[in-house]
Amino acid sequence: MIKLVILGTGNVATHLFHAFFESENVAVVQVYNHNADSLKPFSEKTQTTNSLDELEEADVYLICAKDDAIKDLAEKMPYRNKLIAHTSGSLPLLNVSTKNGVFYPLQTFSKEVFVDVSKIPFCIEASDENSLKILRHLAESISDKIYTISTEQRKILHLAAVFVCNFTNHLYSIGEEICVKNQVPFEILHALITETARKATVASPEKIQTGPAVRNDLETIEQHLSQLKNPDFKEIYILLTQSIQEKNGKEL
Amino acid sequence: MIKLVILGTGNVATHLFHAFFESENVAVVQVYNHNADSLKPFSEKTQTTNSLDELEEADVYLICAKDDAIKDLAEKMPYRNKLIAHTSGSLPLLNVSTKNGVFYPLQTFSKEVFVDVSKIPFCIEASDENSLKILRHLAESISDKIYTISTEQRKILHLAAVFVCNFTNHLYSIGEEICVKNQVPFEILHALITETARKATVASPEKIQTGPAVRNDLETIEQHLSQLKNPDFKEIYILLTQSIQEKNGKEL
Repeated sequence: MIKLVILGTGNVATHLFHAFFESENVAVVQVYNHNADSLKPFSEKTQTTNSLDELEEADVYLICAKDDAIKDLAEKMPYRNKLIAHTSGSLPLLNVSTKNGVFYPLQTFSKEVFVDVSKIPFCIEASDENSLKILRHLAESISDKIYTISTEQRKILHLAAVFVCNFTNHLYSIGEEICVKNQVPFEILHALITETARKATVASPEKIQTGPAVRNDLETIEQHLSQLKNPDFKEIYILLTQSIQEKNGKEL
Repeated sequence: MIKLVILGTGNVATHLFHAFFESENVAVVQVYNHNADSLKPFSEKTQTTNSLDELEEADVYLICAKDDAIKDLAEKMPYRNKLIAHTSGSLPLLNVSTKNGVFYPLQTFSKEVFVDVSKIPFCIEASDENSLKILRHLAESISDKIYTISTEQRKILHLAAVFVCNFTNHLYSIGEEICVKNQVPFEILHALITETARKATVASPEKIQTGPAVRNDLETIEQHLSQLKNPDFKEIYILLTQSIQEKNGKEL
């Protein structure tokens, strides 16, 4: 049984807490946050504290917070000989304890939307073999996909994730705005969104690019540009069209 | 039983042919293409021809081709009193027969990747009520999702589809390139891609935007820009970051 203290009460902390709480191999002995109010949702299920001086003894201290807060918290930790891990995609392995780790869930978390944690890939890294083993056990207790990834590789994944997740969601959001402003139900596009994502997991996205840009269908491109009223959306349309054509070896 | 002639042998024609071929309510009596070689995959299952003068009598002539080819073919059709429909998202209802229609499958088709046609939304439009009814029956024979959509609405959907499908796939492709060039398996991002798409079908994408741009996490944004070697990718990163911040009311 791994004894775990979770530091943080945001989206990542909340989703991981619930997954670990269901696991038989992990005991979440405490949740910490400096803001006592944010601890309420956890206080019925485990001990909580808003004071770092009151942190319980545990095998792993998992800091689930924004990057700046992770650094702050790690430096204030009262233990220097315990495994202290963080969940950031962009921060390096810290050097705040004799045992340091990274426990990065490569997923997008929103409070409003349920996430199946068992399908999340966990990218782990540690300062020593034993700590890596503990983080692997921790990840295996809630997920099937565990990858040992260096800080450099993790930074690459985090950058690529911004393109395939955050920027992609923004394109969905633009599609939604175009539909809503023209009284077309965005729902009609749901099947297309799902299928486009599915295809990217069964084939190389570069090899299955479709649409007017890769076909060099100038008439459709011109028509789309004339339809776009928002200058930002027009600029994005032009830049992505050019980028598709360059990646696929076509000249504009 | 609706008697159907399919004109075209590309991705859309091929996927629709196979779906109609399985349907009990539709008989694909012929497939046409000017190029005889391209008809071979169809010739075992139905009649084929490369001459418009040999087109069979049918209830619907479905032109599944690129936009330019659709216009050409429609004008050369030997029948002017039959329902002639096309599958284009951007072309208007044509005026080449006494009965004209649109039968637009809102999906991305690649020869390499299997598509479940029953999940595809079909956007239909026709010059008269009876033709609309026939197109509805045609769509219902292969799919559960049928929308009656005007030419203007269809053009909006086609434009929005470029953002949520073609441009999104290009972002996947950039993510793939970033991973591959840095010896990181792109596969680790599959779960994130799937979940990002799923979320967009259960919540408004604008309301669930995540990532460094919407958090205004300048340190991470700077780090990502320094990691990006490809100037095109850097430009896309900057433009989409600005666009996310403007859409979400943050100043850069």
